[in-house]
Amino acid sequence: MTTRWKLTIAYDGAPFHGWQRQEENLPTVQSVLENALKEYAQQDIRLHVAGRTDTGVSARGQVAHFDIEDNRKTPHNGQSIAKALNALSRPFPIAILQAEKVHDDFHARFDAKNKLYIYRCVRRTAPPVIDLGKVWHIKRDWHITEMQKAANELLGHHDFTSFRASGCQAKHPMRTLGRAEIIVKKYDDFGGQEIQFYFEAQSFLHHQVRNMVGTLALVGEGKWNAADMKAVLEIKDRTKAGQTAPPDGLSLMRVDY
Amino acid sequence: MTTRWKLTIAYDGAPFHGWQRQEENLPTVQSVLENALKEYAQQDIRLHVAGRTDTGVSARGQVAHFDIEDNRKTPHNGQSIAKALNALSRPFPIAILQAEKVHDDFHARFDAKNKLYIYRCVRRTAPPVIDLGKVWHIKRDWHITEMQKAANELLGHHDFTSFRASGCQAKHPMRTLGRAEIIVKKYDDFGGQEIQFYFEAQSFLHHQVRNMVGTLALVGEGKWNAADMKAVLEIKDRTKAGQTAPPDGLSLMRVDY
Repeated sequence: MTTRWKLTIAYDGAPFHGWQRQEENLPTVQSVLENALKEYAQQDIRLHVAGRTDTGVSARGQVAHFDIEDNRKTPHNGQSIAKALNALSRPFPIAILQAEKVHDDFHARFDAKNKLYIYRCVRRTAPPVIDLGKVWHIKRDWHITEMQKAANELLGHHDFTSFRASGCQAKHPMRTLGRAEIIVKKYDDFGGQEIQFYFEAQSFLHHQVRNMVGTLALVGEGKWNAADMKAVLEIKDRTKAGQTAPPDGLSLMRVDY
Repeated sequence: MTTRWKLTIAYDGAPFHGWQRQEENLPTVQSVLENALKEYAQQDIRLHVAGRTDTGVSARGQVAHFDIEDNRKTPHNGQSIAKALNALSRPFPIAILQAEKVHDDFHARFDAKNKLYIYRCVRRTAPPVIDLGKVWHIKRDWHITEMQKAANELLGHHDFTSFRASGCQAKHPMRTLGRAEIIVKKYDDFGGQEIQFYFEAQSFLHHQVRNMVGTLALVGEGKWNAADMKAVLEIKDRTKAGQTAPPDGLSLMRVDY
């Protein structure tokens, strides 16, 4: 008899070659956790993730599920699974926040109703140090009001081909963006600003968030305006949109079911 | 002719053996910056800091001053000093946020009117990963209301001997604490809490903040109450107070003049 478990996972993306297990023996979040599961359960266990993250991208609430043969006298429980995986993943920066028993038909990816990504930028002259590798460093002021107008053009159901990585494996480029909000906060006491992008959708294309941020940066710099954003969405051509923003600033915050 | 400069500095404390230059060839913030200054100005330059920080303690707004022989055709300016020091400090996580010319009688330490330290804790079962080394990991709930009552007992002018490291070089143990505030925030979407301690004073004894936090933790755990905090302050005996909280959570936020 197998039981299905849902894991809620946080990780620092810096030391990993992304989520997905690689042919080569490179550290990925999936390989570290599957190795930990094998050591814990003495079985080969495959993890199914809500949404793969790229090299350098972090998560504060990633979700994955797995099935485990439950042939022990004392059945598995969430606390012991979480504790064991946290211990067996060391020294990699992975934390199991929750391990919950779910129905056999639960699927981390197909059942996801909504995902929240946050992309963080720091705007100041001096380089970030305490948040090094966790933020995109911006040196000049951005036109935030115009950026928010441009971000609003992305809301709703669209063909996001202009923001889709060439290697994207999704079946089609249609996605429904439910939130594209820019929040500005004080970063330090010396004029530094933190600019956060909140993006919510049921699912995203490969590099979609980073390509949207990289294109919104053109608006921030005054090179583009909101109408340009609307036009590039309609033209359905990746080469016409902005650069892919670096992975550093991106974090998967949570997945809702 | 020499001119005096005031630097506002951020650094990640993790890779450093504290602020102060050591006899041995260990990396410290002072040694990295003094070496950068020597390379920039071709002179031996000594930095005078507002308040030394210990191994592992970070800063978002440390202040130091130095004198420089200004025998060049084009005088030094703040932007070029900051830019040069940021480049020459690499790969160490040090950032010069501001470099300002000041009067010859300005002194980073003696003229400081107020310092703000923040100490960050994360309360959840799973270990911190993205903030690893930047927070104190707490597993159980704390009694925040009683902790704030206990913190209030520390406010004002007192003999802080019970919170003073044995190696403290201050001339006397009297300090005036102007702020001792505990703020609780959401840390993640899965029940995790961040507990922040804000401490402000003109100056602090060695380990004073970490010893106050370590003692307030006893109140949080329900082992002590506010009256115990008052009593331990009055007894003037370091061995009667709580443990020294780890350096990870501590950050010098700013120094006011």
